[in-house]
Amino acid sequence: MNKLKTLKGFRDFLPVEARKRQYVIDILRRTFESYGFEPLETPSLEYEEVLSGKYGEEGQKLMYRFKDQGGRDVAMRYDQTVPLARVVAQYANDLPLPFRRYQIQNVWRAENTQKGRYREFLQADIDIVGTENLYADAEAIKVILDVLKELGVKNYKVMLNDRAIFQNIPKGAIVAIDKLQKIGEEGVIKELISKGAAKNENEAKKLVESLEDVEATHVVKTISMLLNLIGVGEGKVLFSPTLARGLDYYTGSIFEIQIEGYSGGSVAGGGRYDNLIGMFGDKQIPAVGGSFGFDRLVDALEELDLFPSSLLTSKVLVTIPSKEEASEAIETANKLRGQGINTEVYPDVNVGIDKQLKYADKKKIPFVALFEGEKLFLKDMSSGEKSNVSFEELIKKIS
Amino acid sequence: MNKLKTLKGFRDFLPVEARKRQYVIDILRRTFESYGFEPLETPSLEYEEVLSGKYGEEGQKLMYRFKDQGGRDVAMRYDQTVPLARVVAQYANDLPLPFRRYQIQNVWRAENTQKGRYREFLQADIDIVGTENLYADAEAIKVILDVLKELGVKNYKVMLNDRAIFQNIPKGAIVAIDKLQKIGEEGVIKELISKGAAKNENEAKKLVESLEDVEATHVVKTISMLLNLIGVGEGKVLFSPTLARGLDYYTGSIFEIQIEGYSGGSVAGGGRYDNLIGMFGDKQIPAVGGSFGFDRLVDALEELDLFPSSLLTSKVLVTIPSKEEASEAIETANKLRGQGINTEVYPDVNVGIDKQLKYADKKKIPFVALFEGEKLFLKDMSSGEKSNVSFEELIKKIS
Repeated sequence: MNKLKTLKGFRDFLPVEARKRQYVIDILRRTFESYGFEPLETPSLEYEEVLSGKYGEEGQKLMYRFKDQGGRDVAMRYDQTVPLARVVAQYANDLPLPFRRYQIQNVWRAENTQKGRYREFLQADIDIVGTENLYADAEAIKVILDVLKELGVKNYKVMLNDRAIFQNIPKGAIVAIDKLQKIGEEGVIKELISKGAAKNENEAKKLVESLEDVEATHVVKTISMLLNLIGVGEGKVLFSPTLARGLDYYTGSIFEIQIEGYSGGSVAGGGRYDNLIGMFGDKQIPAVGGSFGFDRLVDALEELDLFPSSLLTSKVLVTIPSKEEASEAIETANKLRGQGINTEVYPDVNVGIDKQLKYADKKKIPFVALFEGEKLFLKDMSSGEKSNVSFEELIKKIS
Repeated sequence: MNKLKTLKGFRDFLPVEARKRQYVIDILRRTFESYGFEPLETPSLEYEEVLSGKYGEEGQKLMYRFKDQGGRDVAMRYDQTVPLARVVAQYANDLPLPFRRYQIQNVWRAENTQKGRYREFLQADIDIVGTENLYADAEAIKVILDVLKELGVKNYKVMLNDRAIFQNIPKGAIVAIDKLQKIGEEGVIKELISKGAAKNENEAKKLVESLEDVEATHVVKTISMLLNLIGVGEGKVLFSPTLARGLDYYTGSIFEIQIEGYSGGSVAGGGRYDNLIGMFGDKQIPAVGGSFGFDRLVDALEELDLFPSSLLTSKVLVTIPSKEEASEAIETANKLRGQGINTEVYPDVNVGIDKQLKYADKKKIPFVALFEGEKLFLKDMSSGEKSNVSFEELIKKIS
């Protein structure tokens, strides 16, 4: 007998879960497209060289890498920003700039698995390539907020910062300070000392406080103002001088978006990275973008009970009364589909009607069409009511 | 500088291509769901043991396999039928049978690349699990035909066969006979002899002819009849006794679907596999299904010129006249989106209007909204006409 399990950190999505994911993906796409973002797909496997050295030490360790059948060193997609940078450099002549693209694909990281952290997970990215204008930074944030709105999320916060304020702070210290929300000031102070970024408690404290007292930069102020202009209330955007974000490649604005009432952390984040694309080509091309942690977003919607109560595929189950009378049932199903009604046929004949009704119930199919002799009956599964109907009445009742 | 290319057999899909793919995927999903098929996703990586031994010798060779960071032997998804079989066995209690599922995910095969053959490619599968009723076989085919209809394909052929007719024919001979359409009778005869499936030309010829003369089985006749009943014309379904299909796991009906006027081979195929799921669990559960070769399908639509002429994301480009007058432009864009109109803002201010119009032209955005002083103008990019409009007129002209 074969193994009957999936790898740690890898998941099956059965229909109930898969439908919810698809619902979110549809809203992501629709909202991204409403701003002119266009779809891009890149390969799951790249030359290792393309991805290497872009994600810091940790990324290098967590990347899935192997030698393929041809002896090439290959690596699995680790994020969608580095592949975007490669694409922009590679097809420079075919992509009119500014280039707005979205990408919704899986990435793989060999992380220690824990609640909400997987080894295969979906990312949904939007990026605007080819402009330094801060309007683009604001738009990247606004698109994400529009997605939340479409999903029914009303209360959120945008944490906004500018990498420039870390100019004189050692890299090790930034990594520690970034954990302020997670491990508190005391925790950060301890880590600053243990990492050698501060000599003693006093110095560490000063370092943290110096950041907390810093004033908002021009970048932060401008983006806040632009967001305000397009309908994001003042109180929603918070200057967060200790927000650092881990990734190496950010150069300007950085942001994270939290949903109030959801404790699982930020659902989206991003920032400006003006020097990444130049690593692939002759030219530096500025860029800014953001990314949804798709699993967290789904988690948050679940916690806040924001999924529509019905995400069903089938509206009606048609039963086949007997082999001899199969044709009428099958034709009826076909006609219902012709009317745009998702219709499922119970494919077995020699199965009692009770079992078929149980099946409809378990799958939450709201209506069942039954044949008794030449007569067509419709059973409403929620009320239990069963009535003799014509085909026209059937359609009317179902729609 | 970094490598600026993708691996052989792996592809980037830039927006124009990605939009076409998305158009096809949307129709696949919608049609699958109209029959009650439900989405399923399975991991890209599985324990190698789950996939091993299911795809014959060739499959074993072409499968992407490696050791992960934890030393586990893992393999990348090779098709979607074996993962489905694992899922059905693993979640037997959570999946009401009959289980109709669709799955649209990438698979990976280290094939020799050639025109239309890639190493990463999308498959779109539908399967009906849990019934031996031949209605299910017919439905699997009908769904595929409905997809073609929705895509505008009018002329197609269903090649239908029953594995039962190969009962007394050695496996090596089946593989050769399957190539009849590709390499002709002479080629098949040569291969039968070289593979040792026939001693000489005479015997090989007899073998092929014995198949060509064989009568349609009950399975073939019933499925044809059922297809006919739900609107598939008689002439469309052809009994094809030499159709074999490569995969090891088929046990009953097998079919392939060809688009007339497209020379790239079958765009879809499938069949019944009643013994596969039992390899994973204690119970044999019958199943039947079919799969689109997504790339071929896209190729065929391209060749037959069946893609809608406009698959654009943005309907209008809004230009920002100057830093001082940015707010009105940005607000206008925002209001247009509120009306359900996909609207893109040109994010740079200090760029001449000519360059912005060129951008709209290159991206085939049909309308451009311009501000001159306080006045709003709309430029129709196809006629070149430019007129002063109110916001209400703007909406009217664009929609």
